[in-house]
Amino acid sequence: MNRRTFLRNVSVASSALPIVSPALAAMSSPAKKLGVALVGLGRYAEYMAYQMKECQYCEFRGLVTGTPSKAESWSKEYNIPEKNRYNYQNFDQIKDNPDVDIVYVILPNAMHKEFTIRAAKAKKHVIVEKPMALNPAECVEMMNACRENGVQLAVGYRLHFEPYNLEMKRLGQEKVFGPVRIVETSLGYFSGQAGEWRLNKKLAGGGPLMNLGVYCIQAGRYITGEDPMAVTAQFGPVLRKALFSEVEESITWQMQFPSGAICTSTTTCAAGIDRLYASAEKGHFELSPAISYGPFKGRSTNGEMDFPQINQQAAQMDAISKLLLDNQPIPDHIGGLEGWKDMKVIEAVYKAARTQTKVSITY
Amino acid sequence: MNRRTFLRNVSVASSALPIVSPALAAMSSPAKKLGVALVGLGRYAEYMAYQMKECQYCEFRGLVTGTPSKAESWSKEYNIPEKNRYNYQNFDQIKDNPDVDIVYVILPNAMHKEFTIRAAKAKKHVIVEKPMALNPAECVEMMNACRENGVQLAVGYRLHFEPYNLEMKRLGQEKVFGPVRIVETSLGYFSGQAGEWRLNKKLAGGGPLMNLGVYCIQAGRYITGEDPMAVTAQFGPVLRKALFSEVEESITWQMQFPSGAICTSTTTCAAGIDRLYASAEKGHFELSPAISYGPFKGRSTNGEMDFPQINQQAAQMDAISKLLLDNQPIPDHIGGLEGWKDMKVIEAVYKAARTQTKVSITY
Repeated sequence: MNRRTFLRNVSVASSALPIVSPALAAMSSPAKKLGVALVGLGRYAEYMAYQMKECQYCEFRGLVTGTPSKAESWSKEYNIPEKNRYNYQNFDQIKDNPDVDIVYVILPNAMHKEFTIRAAKAKKHVIVEKPMALNPAECVEMMNACRENGVQLAVGYRLHFEPYNLEMKRLGQEKVFGPVRIVETSLGYFSGQAGEWRLNKKLAGGGPLMNLGVYCIQAGRYITGEDPMAVTAQFGPVLRKALFSEVEESITWQMQFPSGAICTSTTTCAAGIDRLYASAEKGHFELSPAISYGPFKGRSTNGEMDFPQINQQAAQMDAISKLLLDNQPIPDHIGGLEGWKDMKVIEAVYKAARTQTKVSITY
Repeated sequence: MNRRTFLRNVSVASSALPIVSPALAAMSSPAKKLGVALVGLGRYAEYMAYQMKECQYCEFRGLVTGTPSKAESWSKEYNIPEKNRYNYQNFDQIKDNPDVDIVYVILPNAMHKEFTIRAAKAKKHVIVEKPMALNPAECVEMMNACRENGVQLAVGYRLHFEPYNLEMKRLGQEKVFGPVRIVETSLGYFSGQAGEWRLNKKLAGGGPLMNLGVYCIQAGRYITGEDPMAVTAQFGPVLRKALFSEVEESITWQMQFPSGAICTSTTTCAAGIDRLYASAEKGHFELSPAISYGPFKGRSTNGEMDFPQINQQAAQMDAISKLLLDNQPIPDHIGGLEGWKDMKVIEAVYKAARTQTKVSITY
């Protein structure tokens, strides 16, 4: 499949979400851009703001931070007027700010629920970074708040806009090599620094499973097009006991799907790993790197894959913004329901590891 | 590492076993070749006989089969004289046959023990195909029989003579990228035909774990240089219930090593999969294909691997024959002890899957 075929098929694979590459988008010039406020100015927010410079349907216009010095320096760099700067206390006043259409929550996991609900009450559409929250119940509260306030909710699932992953999804769901039997997908980075919120159980809700493993759960689900019905799981060894006293350093788990497919995964802070492999009855397809920010490499039984390496963040933000501009609903596979399902799986994986039993999942 | 460096290092990596590539071997001409009798003339024996044509230190000289028509056709093709043909009843007379130095047992797993012991009593050195037997106790009996009869015992671990796998072993055991944290290795083929002995519990002892999974156990062990201390495991779904009524169709398992490394694996008859990946603290290294008969492809954090694609069977047979010719002991990593350890792991994996508990292994 070449670039041309890809562009023709991608609207099918991504359920009619437009992929806006900078080159394509430059050909049109949308009249209106939506304004985005970033809540939380950590490392990923920094990357997001930078990548959004290439967006055609939205722009970075507001910020919310608890650190005045950050408000200052970011505002200079991105030309954010004083009236579009908030802290965690006065954030609710964003309701009266017509510059901001979308609030993007990129806070520690434990704060996702509160700020999603406050944004919804301020009548702003919400994008919340993955994992959606700490547990499925929080996800339900968040979805309810958005529905009740007439705003839309999306989860920051950037890979649903990434050509190599969309191709993996297509090969799996369209059964190009027959039914998928085995998915192997793992993600890890050698990481962990004293004081980091990701090592704090109360703020993060868990270790790498919350942060990285959720991508593997996603991949298993979008390749099979199914939701796992049962999981088994095993905590890995704790090599750095002082750092990983509250959350796991490594975890392995296995998901069983209704079709009989299985997906095995590892996520870890003890080593780097970034891969996605699927074996179907008549062939296989794989990415490595698969989940990071690329550049991706992919191949299948039919040969090497050749897709454009895109700006994932800009593609995600443009696709969501275009839907909102067109008054279209956010599709389920990047919406709250998807985030809730992933949280159901994460909850089951932790329970399976803790109890050393197979845990069934009902949705 | 290029071919030259490889050839310099390979003797270290393989514990001083000589790798004899046809090109190299052609330069010398050993005075004596050992005679090999193949016991069981199934598909792998067929391949082995063919590949052995390139051996420099041994040759195919005798056969043992229960099927007279096979004895006839094979003898024609390989010029095996009548006096070197046996059936399962008169096999013990091989004791008096000076043409045969090595008996290679390539029978269904359930017959490995009996024919290894009978060969040992006939004072022939024995090579037994993997998995060594049905359980660890049988392995001990086999080792005892060989010791008592003053003959040597090797297991047909062909990958210990294969350059790409030896490089994986070197990168892992020499900690080239720091300590290994994660190994992922899986092997599967879409396979299973009614009547096949591999689907018969009594003859095979188990399903793909016995036949294919043993390679993954080996890989986890030779990359870490350690023996797993505990395993967890999960039977996969049974997609073809009629075929897989006695043995598993798929199984996933996880091995924990004393250093804290983990190895996750899948083996299956439901789809093709053939890969070996290791992640260490400072880099990764992988093969895909990894375990089959090649051609192998490998890469690491340092780039693509480039080694000769060799005749694995000839390399294995020549290396073992050279040791026997030189009156050197078969090293542990291809000997009975290695086969016994793998059977200990296999036994623990089945127990873990059956009982859904973590199973410790003591050696």
